[in-house]
Amino acid sequence: MSTEPRNPEYAATVRRSFEAQGVMTLLGASLVEVAPGHVEIEVVPRPELSQQQSFLHAGVTTTILDSACGYAGLTLMPAGSEVLTVELKVNLLAPAAGDRVVARGRVVRSGRTLTVAQGDAYAVTGGDEVHCATITATLIRVDAPG
Amino acid sequence: MSTEPRNPEYAATVRRSFEAQGVMTLLGASLVEVAPGHVEIEVVPRPELSQQQSFLHAGVTTTILDSACGYAGLTLMPAGSEVLTVELKVNLLAPAAGDRVVARGRVVRSGRTLTVAQGDAYAVTGGDEVHCATITATLIRVDAPG
Amino acid sequence: MSTEPRNPEYAATVRRSFEAQGVMTLLGASLVEVAPGHVEIEVVPRPELSQQQSFLHAGVTTTILDSACGYAGLTLMPAGSEVLTVELKVNLLAPAAGDRVVARGRVVRSGRTLTVAQGDAYAVTGGDEVHCATITATLIRVDAPG
Amino acid sequence: MSTEPRNPEYAATVRRSFEAQGVMTLLGASLVEVAPGHVEIEVVPRPELSQQQSFLHAGVTTTILDSACGYAGLTLMPAGSEVLTVELKVNLLAPAAGDRVVARGRVVRSGRTLTVAQGDAYAVTGGDEVHCATITATLIRVDAPG
Repeated sequence: MSTEPRNPEYAATVRRSFEAQGVMTLLGASLVEVAPGHVEIEVVPRPELSQQQSFLHAGVTTTILDSACGYAGLTLMPAGSEVLTVELKVNLLAPAAGDRVVARGRVVRSGRTLTVAQGDAYAVTGGDEVHCATITATLIRVDAPG
Repeated sequence: MSTEPRNPEYAATVRRSFEAQGVMTLLGASLVEVAPGHVEIEVVPRPELSQQQSFLHAGVTTTILDSACGYAGLTLMPAGSEVLTVELKVNLLAPAAGDRVVARGRVVRSGRTLTVAQGDAYAVTGGDEVHCATITATLIRVDAPG
Repeated sequence: MSTEPRNPEYAATVRRSFEAQGVMTLLGASLVEVAPGHVEIEVVPRPELSQQQSFLHAGVTTTILDSACGYAGLTLMPAGSEVLTVELKVNLLAPAAGDRVVARGRVVRSGRTLTVAQGDAYAVTGGDEVHCATITATLIRVDAPG
Repeated sequence: MSTEPRNPEYAATVRRSFEAQGVMTLLGASLVEVAPGHVEIEVVPRPELSQQQSFLHAGVTTTILDSACGYAGLTLMPAGSEVLTVELKVNLLAPAAGDRVVARGRVVRSGRTLTVAQGDAYAVTGGDEVHCATITATLIRVDAPG
């Protein structure tokens, strides 16, 4: 699959969109890597993000995986594009705990209308990574407003 | 499918667990209905919950759908159970906007170990409901700690 | 959701396409109902369709669920359309055994490009139906060749 | 993830189960590789396996992907186990055509009760491989009868 970006400003486009996502601020998520066809987002677990057992809520893990996949897709779209999630599927593999949880999204197929991305989340403690979730998402390109 | 609860305290069990989910407080989500095999959770869209176009982020819709399904499952489990999500799959059908977004989860199959639940989210504006997402989730029963 | 067909020949279109699917003949599947936004396909379990325990193979159940969803989608598309599956997700709820297994697909959202359908499979023995699988599928409309 | 097989006869166990799946014979599928945590199954496209445009039906691609994942899981289970699919999710990425279509399944997480596997299907023409589908599946271990 070609991962040649058609939008030379792809990284700035992703960063601007990320900053416009209120929920990323609410979760305290940060954009740690933006490369063609590949994006990483991480979050630091804290009580406000937990489910009933104090692990990161599946919905929070899913939220950063979804955004990592969406932005991985956006890096390969032409300028003036926005990306929406059509559907996503996540398997939770292990409790999401640790110093931080990092979600890595990558493009599997980049079509004119639809993009398919996959991603994985890892719970990182010191130098140790535990694979805690995996996602497959279908994305659709739409024209950015204005 | 039988929806006879085996835990007579099922509603209190769900409410206690919901209150222990820090992320529900962070999102401002509320538990609006708890019945055997059926749970509803709603959230009021606000800028802090948005994606880049000011609609509710897919991850937020997924978070309340996931909890609605999980708690629908928990209502049918024996006392002393907790529920974890094994996997979930969400299709986003329409932008999630409106006065509030309500997620309704229901049990489709309740087994000894695994439960399958489905749910739907609706964007409600006045008396109008727009179907904005649908979920299928697989849940696993585990013994509650201590 | 509107289920008004835009193609007055929708039923003939579906039947013609079904007959062109070699795999339906191989499985011995039959098209038992075609209505706007709703299609039913059934198959009679036999050893050639089994997994290792003599139940219907998950792949066979998935195949008829996928076609039931795809054709449910096709009933609402304009004349000259074909439908392809973008993705599908199936939960297997109970062993698929019995006199026949019937897959019922229905359209949940019918868009210009994408359609979302859901469906359920039932194992029927005499007058008894066991819910054995549930599917959610995303479909794409394409122009029929020539 | 450890991929140390606990059943020294894992390959024979998989081959015996594969031969008991009537649908594999019907499809003309063959088991081309069995290694710990990794299984490959392939099928040669022919009119009897087609959808309406003469490509391999999504259900057939799904069937061999499902079996490849299930058997990848079975290679890591203790002797006396059988594997059933709890749920599967497939994205179709490109038309499945070519000399043969090969499905490769691998274990992502191997738990006591549940196993998560992922896989990919490729349409092979000469030395060329086109990535045509990707699957994530959840499997459950059950005791083999008898």
